[in-house]
Amino acid sequence: MNIGLLGFGTIGTGVYELINLNKGRFAKNLDEKVVITKILDKDPNKKVAEEDKVARVVTNPDDIMDDPEIEIVIALLGGMDFEYGLIKRALQSGKHVVTANKAVISEYFEELLTIAAENNVILRYEASVGGGIPIIGSLKEELKINRVNEIKGILNGTTNFILSKMTEEGADFADTLKLAQSIGFAEADPTADIEGYDVSRKLAILSSLAYGGIIKDEDVRKRGLSDVRAVDIEMAGDYGYIIKYLGHSVLKEGNQVYTTVEPVMFKEASIMSNVNSEFNIISIVGDIIGELQFYGKGAGKDATANAVVGDALYIINCIKDNNFPKPLVFRKQLDKKGVGAFKGKYYLRVDIDSHETFEHALNAVDEVCARKNIIVSDNRVFFMTEPVEADVFDAMVAKIKEKQSECFYARIYE
Amino acid sequence: MNIGLLGFGTIGTGVYELINLNKGRFAKNLDEKVVITKILDKDPNKKVAEEDKVARVVTNPDDIMDDPEIEIVIALLGGMDFEYGLIKRALQSGKHVVTANKAVISEYFEELLTIAAENNVILRYEASVGGGIPIIGSLKEELKINRVNEIKGILNGTTNFILSKMTEEGADFADTLKLAQSIGFAEADPTADIEGYDVSRKLAILSSLAYGGIIKDEDVRKRGLSDVRAVDIEMAGDYGYIIKYLGHSVLKEGNQVYTTVEPVMFKEASIMSNVNSEFNIISIVGDIIGELQFYGKGAGKDATANAVVGDALYIINCIKDNNFPKPLVFRKQLDKKGVGAFKGKYYLRVDIDSHETFEHALNAVDEVCARKNIIVSDNRVFFMTEPVEADVFDAMVAKIKEKQSECFYARIYE
Repeated sequence: MNIGLLGFGTIGTGVYELINLNKGRFAKNLDEKVVITKILDKDPNKKVAEEDKVARVVTNPDDIMDDPEIEIVIALLGGMDFEYGLIKRALQSGKHVVTANKAVISEYFEELLTIAAENNVILRYEASVGGGIPIIGSLKEELKINRVNEIKGILNGTTNFILSKMTEEGADFADTLKLAQSIGFAEADPTADIEGYDVSRKLAILSSLAYGGIIKDEDVRKRGLSDVRAVDIEMAGDYGYIIKYLGHSVLKEGNQVYTTVEPVMFKEASIMSNVNSEFNIISIVGDIIGELQFYGKGAGKDATANAVVGDALYIINCIKDNNFPKPLVFRKQLDKKGVGAFKGKYYLRVDIDSHETFEHALNAVDEVCARKNIIVSDNRVFFMTEPVEADVFDAMVAKIKEKQSECFYARIYE
Repeated sequence: MNIGLLGFGTIGTGVYELINLNKGRFAKNLDEKVVITKILDKDPNKKVAEEDKVARVVTNPDDIMDDPEIEIVIALLGGMDFEYGLIKRALQSGKHVVTANKAVISEYFEELLTIAAENNVILRYEASVGGGIPIIGSLKEELKINRVNEIKGILNGTTNFILSKMTEEGADFADTLKLAQSIGFAEADPTADIEGYDVSRKLAILSSLAYGGIIKDEDVRKRGLSDVRAVDIEMAGDYGYIIKYLGHSVLKEGNQVYTTVEPVMFKEASIMSNVNSEFNIISIVGDIIGELQFYGKGAGKDATANAVVGDALYIINCIKDNNFPKPLVFRKQLDKKGVGAFKGKYYLRVDIDSHETFEHALNAVDEVCARKNIIVSDNRVFFMTEPVEADVFDAMVAKIKEKQSECFYARIYE
């Protein structure tokens, strides 16, 4: 079985190495050689392993797309338009596709599945969510019996690394982000991670699958992490909480879907609080099975390559058995409703630069919540409120921000 | 597709209800009706649902075993010899089998797989480990790419319920066991749960699969939970630990396997410590994927029925596609080595009834460990030691027990 690999970066190299390392085992288990014959990379000087007499690096995608010997394309370029175009073209050429590209899948999920079905080929994307965690496959399995009506998870390694580091070391956000960038845990432009786009895409993919209708990145309410400060981590700790960056969606009656990506607080003694650094966790709730949680490495060369190669093996098995899974169809029209279904106690910090901003914050909180603890310390005021609906609290903070933008808040999960 | 159900107890009823509840969906997804036609139960007066015009309760297993229309047998009787006999007979009659019986699977794993292969039928047992947690399937998936060399987990709902309750309420072991029995969380004879047989069977099944060679219940070192007292939970808490009942196996060079089932301590702020009551967690470590953890309901009607029905759907798909998985063969001869690979700091409590038993305990600990903290309180002495190998510590405690049997110990996982 010949494979064309798009992308020879970290994950691409991992996939290349993993397939070569296991070629004996795969050949034995599958009665079939698994061979990467061509690798697309911008740099024509990139080299395959010396002992590899088969694979070669190509710079023109046509060399892979037009090669009738290549039955499977593994797309690991990242980015959006270019990879989207190639995935589409591969499917249209009757090639099966494996990708880790969450941006492309979340944006063009329905279209790509339709094209795959029309061309009788398989599209797999296990590595697009949760890196090495086998969540897509597990979710599909549970859906054969369950209605899944809730998904939540720590889905981004970069923000989780930053929060873990800040918690361990009492460091501030900006410094920790710089550290993460310097050691390769955050990108030069960290927007997708710290503003929630990465989590939102993953949540959109899982929610679409689980709820049986399309949810896109743009449907998901996102609140970034960049307002968090060392003092927030410290205050949370004083109350016995840990701050985490969470994606959460729920399905309610009438196909109403509520989604959010935002910083929240969990009790120190909880499973979620103890998922650290590059690890991810995903919780799904089914009507029969109850809650299931899946924990593992959400990123990294080996874990991600494991998921990608697992998808490729799945496809090879289907081809050999000439037995393809039923195409997935998103039949439901989902009613996307914002964040009204989320409710909880809130932690809120507002920096105070005058008596006026103090009064303004106090009045704003008063309007949504009668009972709360208030701590005033130096030039900051901290609130711990009674339970408030997320949309009400968001609107209230927006009002505070008209006068004072230096503030941070997080809903408490208990 | 006709199914014969062996057992109409809690799980059997759950499976019956789940299949009937979903018959429309299953028929649509599979292009095939899924029908339970006969249910074996001792009690001929047990009734199927009134609207069910197909299924009937039989008291003679021949009615199912000799029915050529029944292609799948779901075995949920529990116990050992009787169900083993029926599973074997079903496989030999060319029927596919799904079971949740961990005792039968762990004891006759290789024989039953061989009989299934010889008769070209499928044997599935997802619910035998971890109830609703999809661990067997996930483990098999990861093994296509990984060498899995470590498995650990909280695998028994009864002991985990007892420990959670004792931790919450400061109650003692005997009272909590009685409570668990009174609300159906522990059986009248709780031996299999509190002496570790249940965990050991589950660990044996997972380890056999993961390491590719047979490990039986009798190969697993088991240490029961019944020595734990409220004071141990309290002392653990003072040091920031939670006591859990853990199954743990590791594969080392030369196919050496180390296994243990015993009470251990985890930091309060850890994932394992926050798995409570009837929930289970299973951690596997692969050479490529790293650590994966799977969390969910380890017991209970719905979650277990979910796993059983999932297996049945898998088999129906295979039958319809006329496409069976390669039979599993345990090729490796494993060298079973005891507990020498486990090492850690230890907590030890010894009750003192005389100066002699005190001296005896002190000297015994001294011999295996120079540095330790000692607390003497009322008529008890508590030790927190430096790291000691498990086999050394076990032998040391055996020596203490010659003079004083009232003691408890647990290795600390950090």
